Amino acid sequence: MRTGTLHCVGMGPGDPELLTLKAVRLLATSPVIACFAKRGRPGHAWRIAGAHMNPAAEQLRFEYPFTTEMHVGDPRYEPAMRAFYEASAAALGERLAAGSDVALLCEGDPFFYGSAMYLFDRLAAEFPSEITPGITGMSGCWAQARLPMTHGDDILTVLPGTLDQASLAARLAASDASVIMKVGRNLGKIRAALGQAGLTDRALYVERGTMPGTRTVKLADMPDEPAPYFSLVLVAGRQRPR
Amino acid sequence: MRTGTLHCVGMGPGDPELLTLKAVRLLATSPVIACFAKRGRPGHAWRIAGAHMNPAAEQLRFEYPFTTEMHVGDPRYEPAMRAFYEASAAALGERLAAGSDVALLCEGDPFFYGSAMYLFDRLAAEFPSEITPGITGMSGCWAQARLPMTHGDDILTVLPGTLDQASLAARLAASDASVIMKVGRNLGKIRAALGQAGLTDRALYVERGTMPGTRTVKLADMPDEPAPYFSLVLVAGRQRPR
Repeated sequence: MRTGTLHCVGMGPGDPELLTLKAVRLLATSPVIACFAKRGRPGHAWRIAGAHMNPAAEQLRFEYPFTTEMHVGDPRYEPAMRAFYEASAAALGERLAAGSDVALLCEGDPFFYGSAMYLFDRLAAEFPSEITPGITGMSGCWAQARLPMTHGDDILTVLPGTLDQASLAARLAASDASVIMKVGRNLGKIRAALGQAGLTDRALYVERGTMPGTRTVKLADMPDEPAPYFSLVLVAGRQRPR
Repeated sequence: MRTGTLHCVGMGPGDPELLTLKAVRLLATSPVIACFAKRGRPGHAWRIAGAHMNPAAEQLRFEYPFTTEMHVGDPRYEPAMRAFYEASAAALGERLAAGSDVALLCEGDPFFYGSAMYLFDRLAAEFPSEITPGITGMSGCWAQARLPMTHGDDILTVLPGTLDQASLAARLAASDASVIMKVGRNLGKIRAALGQAGLTDRALYVERGTMPGTRTVKLADMPDEPAPYFSLVLVAGRQRPR
């Protein structure tokens, strides 16, 4: 019997018009559509998919056991996440084994910091798979900010805001252009690292890029409040005046 | 009189199905459609746009005075490129001043190593502008290679292959995941740098990702031949076994 294909489908940064034609086709034709979501929330991917979804599709929502409530360093974190990914992969594996194609929706690009990779890693050896890339959150943010990001021979570094301040500052200083992800509770530290690297004036803060309620502001003008999950800091490259 | 809006439109990495709905809308409705192209070639952006283009649109093709024939270090390079961008911006400025919206097509994402930025930089102060992000070449390549690229707290570094070998090796060794752009004639040097950083076994070479005639191969299995413009080397991140 033919097994189904696992499609990891990039849904882009938030604006539904930034879906690709391929994502729209897969949404309209997949018999099973799955996504991750925060407990009690519909999930950003559902909102983006909206009217494009096959109304007859079986819908699977995998609710994270926690998102920001538990610290990554907590000894309960890793085992709980592992069990969660195991159970989610098993649910998809059942459908794939029965011959159904599955579209696993991923905010942004599936293979760029996406949870979908943890299911792909568990299923790709057993089932055919295909990755539909999506527009990353960072592309959505620099487009919305109208910030030309990298020119010519610029080096771009993508950094998690979870790094310690000294490492952040050193990496920022060594790069032409930088994107800082996972801003969350790290805004004060990120600000200090940018100051240390002499980059405060060039840093932009973008919250919920291309989504409803977005804002773009110079980092220097941002108060030290916890930032939402979908927020980034951008430092554009050397801007060669050609 | 109302002036037109400059739209810098990302066309994605090559597969026309990776166009966004927004790009398709702008292609279908823009009265002026412009793109860059190598002399004597139709241009990749035209091919991707294909049947989506407004048949009544005025089409502008800006042919680079040279691409790889002249070395960037040649004293004639910068002045010729500057004059080329000036003339291209002037041609768009005429249409915008006359009230026509313009769609400037860009392979990949317009603000990620795109030539469109040189026109945006010249026109954005005078005319309204909007950026439509596109799927980058690197996302297209790692999706096609089915290579989960960055997990959790990975650092990603995007490096031009034009860097000297020692700098390349140092940056590769200091990063979790890396993308090397501008492979071209630098393949031998890139291979040596990867060897120095102990990363040869993890490096994938992807040529013309998502385009016709694409290939994906372990870098170790690639002969030292000049690579085409649309080629990349990918080193995936730490692959945390969660």
